[in-house]
Amino acid sequence: MGLVMHATATSEQVEAVVTHIEELGLKPHLSNGTERTIIGAIGEGMVASQYQDHFTIMAGVDRVIPISRPYKLASREFCPVNTQFQVGGAAFGGDGVVIIAGPCAVESRSQTLEIAYAVKEAGATMLRGGAFKPRTSPYSFQGLGEEGLEILADVRLATGLPVITEVMAPEQVPLVASFADMLQVGARNMQNYPLLNAAGESQHPVLLKRGLSATVEELLMAAEYILAHGNRRVALCERGIRTFETSTRNTTDINAIPVLKDLSHLPVILDPSHSTGHWQYVSAVARAAIAAGADGLIVEVHTHPEKALSDGGQSLKPERFAEMVRQVRAVALAVGRSLPEAINLPVRAANMAEVL
Amino acid sequence: MGLVMHATATSEQVEAVVTHIEELGLKPHLSNGTERTIIGAIGEGMVASQYQDHFTIMAGVDRVIPISRPYKLASREFCPVNTQFQVGGAAFGGDGVVIIAGPCAVESRSQTLEIAYAVKEAGATMLRGGAFKPRTSPYSFQGLGEEGLEILADVRLATGLPVITEVMAPEQVPLVASFADMLQVGARNMQNYPLLNAAGESQHPVLLKRGLSATVEELLMAAEYILAHGNRRVALCERGIRTFETSTRNTTDINAIPVLKDLSHLPVILDPSHSTGHWQYVSAVARAAIAAGADGLIVEVHTHPEKALSDGGQSLKPERFAEMVRQVRAVALAVGRSLPEAINLPVRAANMAEVL
Amino acid sequence: MGLVMHATATSEQVEAVVTHIEELGLKPHLSNGTERTIIGAIGEGMVASQYQDHFTIMAGVDRVIPISRPYKLASREFCPVNTQFQVGGAAFGGDGVVIIAGPCAVESRSQTLEIAYAVKEAGATMLRGGAFKPRTSPYSFQGLGEEGLEILADVRLATGLPVITEVMAPEQVPLVASFADMLQVGARNMQNYPLLNAAGESQHPVLLKRGLSATVEELLMAAEYILAHGNRRVALCERGIRTFETSTRNTTDINAIPVLKDLSHLPVILDPSHSTGHWQYVSAVARAAIAAGADGLIVEVHTHPEKALSDGGQSLKPERFAEMVRQVRAVALAVGRSLPEAINLPVRAANMAEVL
Amino acid sequence: MGLVMHATATSEQVEAVVTHIEELGLKPHLSNGTERTIIGAIGEGMVASQYQDHFTIMAGVDRVIPISRPYKLASREFCPVNTQFQVGGAAFGGDGVVIIAGPCAVESRSQTLEIAYAVKEAGATMLRGGAFKPRTSPYSFQGLGEEGLEILADVRLATGLPVITEVMAPEQVPLVASFADMLQVGARNMQNYPLLNAAGESQHPVLLKRGLSATVEELLMAAEYILAHGNRRVALCERGIRTFETSTRNTTDINAIPVLKDLSHLPVILDPSHSTGHWQYVSAVARAAIAAGADGLIVEVHTHPEKALSDGGQSLKPERFAEMVRQVRAVALAVGRSLPEAINLPVRAANMAEVL
Repeated sequence: MGLVMHATATSEQVEAVVTHIEELGLKPHLSNGTERTIIGAIGEGMVASQYQDHFTIMAGVDRVIPISRPYKLASREFCPVNTQFQVGGAAFGGDGVVIIAGPCAVESRSQTLEIAYAVKEAGATMLRGGAFKPRTSPYSFQGLGEEGLEILADVRLATGLPVITEVMAPEQVPLVASFADMLQVGARNMQNYPLLNAAGESQHPVLLKRGLSATVEELLMAAEYILAHGNRRVALCERGIRTFETSTRNTTDINAIPVLKDLSHLPVILDPSHSTGHWQYVSAVARAAIAAGADGLIVEVHTHPEKALSDGGQSLKPERFAEMVRQVRAVALAVGRSLPEAINLPVRAANMAEVL
Repeated sequence: MGLVMHATATSEQVEAVVTHIEELGLKPHLSNGTERTIIGAIGEGMVASQYQDHFTIMAGVDRVIPISRPYKLASREFCPVNTQFQVGGAAFGGDGVVIIAGPCAVESRSQTLEIAYAVKEAGATMLRGGAFKPRTSPYSFQGLGEEGLEILADVRLATGLPVITEVMAPEQVPLVASFADMLQVGARNMQNYPLLNAAGESQHPVLLKRGLSATVEELLMAAEYILAHGNRRVALCERGIRTFETSTRNTTDINAIPVLKDLSHLPVILDPSHSTGHWQYVSAVARAAIAAGADGLIVEVHTHPEKALSDGGQSLKPERFAEMVRQVRAVALAVGRSLPEAINLPVRAANMAEVL
Repeated sequence: MGLVMHATATSEQVEAVVTHIEELGLKPHLSNGTERTIIGAIGEGMVASQYQDHFTIMAGVDRVIPISRPYKLASREFCPVNTQFQVGGAAFGGDGVVIIAGPCAVESRSQTLEIAYAVKEAGATMLRGGAFKPRTSPYSFQGLGEEGLEILADVRLATGLPVITEVMAPEQVPLVASFADMLQVGARNMQNYPLLNAAGESQHPVLLKRGLSATVEELLMAAEYILAHGNRRVALCERGIRTFETSTRNTTDINAIPVLKDLSHLPVILDPSHSTGHWQYVSAVARAAIAAGADGLIVEVHTHPEKALSDGGQSLKPERFAEMVRQVRAVALAVGRSLPEAINLPVRAANMAEVL
Repeated sequence: MGLVMHATATSEQVEAVVTHIEELGLKPHLSNGTERTIIGAIGEGMVASQYQDHFTIMAGVDRVIPISRPYKLASREFCPVNTQFQVGGAAFGGDGVVIIAGPCAVESRSQTLEIAYAVKEAGATMLRGGAFKPRTSPYSFQGLGEEGLEILADVRLATGLPVITEVMAPEQVPLVASFADMLQVGARNMQNYPLLNAAGESQHPVLLKRGLSATVEELLMAAEYILAHGNRRVALCERGIRTFETSTRNTTDINAIPVLKDLSHLPVILDPSHSTGHWQYVSAVARAAIAAGADGLIVEVHTHPEKALSDGGQSLKPERFAEMVRQVRAVALAVGRSLPEAINLPVRAANMAEVL
């Protein structure tokens, strides 16, 4: 950490700062400029950064400048090679691009199964669907809960698609982990630390969504909470940030993709459904994400979006989703990535009958 | 809800929208402009608003415009009279101004007691102090946990000050409620719905902090979650929002004070410590809050901020806090509010000895 | 425009609003909901929108909701076909993708010529370079002014590349237009209306950059100022918006590309140099822009960025720029767009000698 | 400036940076941490800050950290004493609080005169009114132009109130300065550098409004442009910033008041009309501004806001403005400031007849 003293700081004030640095077990380093003195406090990065507030308040100190990044396990410096892991047939962080798709919410067995088949046919390799739904209004549909988890498990059985679903509270983690292949920590919970700790302890793969107003650095520090439990299977998800612009629901921070790939070794997924909020713009932003270097996409698809219990306005119909996948595949190839061809499924009706 | 059709919408598209409105049990109302058709969907406010997404995706629909506010119990229309309630000696929502003060984190019994006496002498009527601390870094001090709650209870006994402390997870609510007079739901958890539900069920008074990037409307909808459990003792807390400005930690949204008093009947508290992030600016913003109509303040105070385990840079020393209270009292009187005189405490050392 | 009355509005207040609508030559249209009355004021779109403020202040009115878009000439509804125009060899708005490149500032004849040759070889079809530089600090290099314009004209002669440069004040427009093929209105001047009017009157092609905190709608209204003078050759430029995120200089609003293509017929260009502020991230965001449907790019290139008089940190070196063009070409083909092959220039040294 | 090297930087890269620092005439200062090397580049503050971009692009450099503030004349360090100046009867920067009021736009002689008398009676000491109006839409009322300036001059004569009005282009400055006592540079033009230079050269008092998304630092650097011409009579105006919050037109950055008073010696004025955008919230925010330490207010007042040609929704009627002044006076006294009593004007009708 660097301490910039006021131009008017006295030598006593400089001395007091130096003394306190030494008391904390750090090494002081003075640099006398023409106008100001700057004092470095040298020590193992994250140790020093915890003491910043001590100095902001000391007399004569103008500003405290953090030097080391405040995360470690999530950093590219700590692990120069891309983290790769497999969730069912979906490979995160490799050459291939992961396509996760499905309804915003699990509404019924038949709805989920119908959508799951459709997205699998179109090329998705993982199914999304919410059983526990965080909703802004207490009067909105809050998800089917455990029944939704059971439906997801059945649909996985029928389709072979691994399943990701959101977990909203620490005590739900064991339950959700017993049904789902990957846990999703939603944007509103990115700094819900008891939940991050529980997700870390579960040792289950986690998709961590960026908070609505979280910086890239805060996203990496939230990942650090999970990684600190020895759980290395973490993927980061950009899903749009809140800005002044109102023509879309959120602003896709496309810069975050190369920035995250630069600062971290973790796979990066983009959610163009939430980051735009309008189905019309989803394909364009999905293509952009892959062009920018994202490792995958998570997309909302619904067979009857006009009757969806949530997020219908940003859900693609299956045929539009299939077209999106075709476009994304072309872009993936152009940037040296691959995306599996859409799979020819076995007789579909039969499977559905078995499950329903 | 109002539906603005595209200028090019066909009569079939208009018809389909009208039919779907009727299917949902709402009443359609057409208005043919010179360029576009607008269709109202009339029904009990919050019912209609749940179906917005249905329409965004229908062919020919350009935009969906919400008409009714999406909250009810929190609204001034629902309850035209200011909500008032008492927590120990602190009266929320009345003529008087509440001053809550104390350390960011409970660090030890002696530290908490010393600060509690100091803030009480200066005029505070409630003590704050974190036992469970949400920290951006997993490597930072995370609070004393249950031991911190015990300290708070002891200090309440010694000083007579009611106590507020943060609760971070739904399963902590019963424990925290058994020690504290008021629960604080922090900014990061404003949309942690399981926590809001648990706080609502507890029937304990709640201070609900506005999320870093939550709109005023979202704050009121978070309050609605608590109110929906019949828990009416909710106070709202503006604590600064995240903007592009970096000279302060957050941007105090002073507008939110008259806006919240206009839209809602709930008491409004301001936290100038977090909303500025620099002790130098705390008093100015505290005065501004009361001038703008806030019902109280929550302020971080520390006897040794340069050694505080968290947030030292924004904590006031007791003598500065006392000066702040004097200034705030003058402003309160100027706007027709009152603030109790600083209390002459009984022999302090004795009390401390008893407790320590 | 729609007027939502308060739930408590009296019939006299409704009557007064209706009367005032009629006074303004608009047609009122009442819709009585279960809780509130909504009044439409029907008239030619942009006429109605001018009177919004009249109604916000009338007793009983809760909110005024704009219905028509406040721009016309810039809208897709007004002109369903993409606007296309040619500036020298650069075609805006067609199947091909425009690549504009060059130094942030014209620093000298030799620097500009060297960079111009390099970007032409790499595939650029237009040269950028600032002669008048808007700088945050009055103590920074402010550009060579008219001398810079002369250099640009000479370099155009030598390389055959058309030239775009920024104009900062209305009285500079004729001068700049006499040297440059296309005028650039910078982000800081997006709402400098005398400048927009002068650019409109000039009938010169204009690249209009989005303001740092301008909404998509405001960008289109700024374009409307130029278009209203009968100047149809306007291209829009997304160059990043200001948000809370600090890991990049600005946040590239990639959503704005499909949104602008949807709402308007004007060509859309992206500036990844300013929208990221770090050369490391320029190529990724350039690829994303073309994948999302942008009609072109404007990129800062410098042969010696570490000695550039401005914006060195976000400038690509020629070889990196050439690599970026190769990547962008692959993505363009993947989304059905084209990009001319890099041109084999005539003997370069000779040309340089002639000009220098 | 401080240069943080990458943890992996080689000694050759460190050497190259040191050499370049010396080439620029600055003095290098190395500090070897446990993980990284940090290199200070020492020289006169603003000199060093111009070279930041040189280093961001050099191999091995991770980040460049500015140390000195990039403005000088505007800084409190340069001038520890508050700047004070007089414009007619209005004293900026002293103990008293300046109240500027009037219509958004000069619409007619009678309207302006009527409002001017009303605000003077209520306690205003300066009249505002726009003759040249920057409007988002080219189809909105753009102001009366020179005729508006003549009206303002006449009304000044009749009422004795000094006049402030906006100037939008450098070539308008001499004209506007010949009519008005103080020039207003609007928010949209805060970084219109030719205009700032012209305002500086005019040596006329200037009210500089903060841009919609300008940081406090950028506001001070814009002031620096004016001050650099030897024009010391500059007042800064906070008028709300653009954030995600939509319940008000802008977000009043109340923090900016103590921050600006801390960093600069220039007077600070708040515009609660634009910073809230709703007349209902103007008084509350006006009181807050004075409580926070602002040196004055600029407020929109209209006798018939429902018929105003612009900004009616945020204009106070004269009686509400008078009430606001009474409230502000009470707060001013509470924080040790003064505000002149409302003036008993001479026979009003007579004056009006003379002028009309």
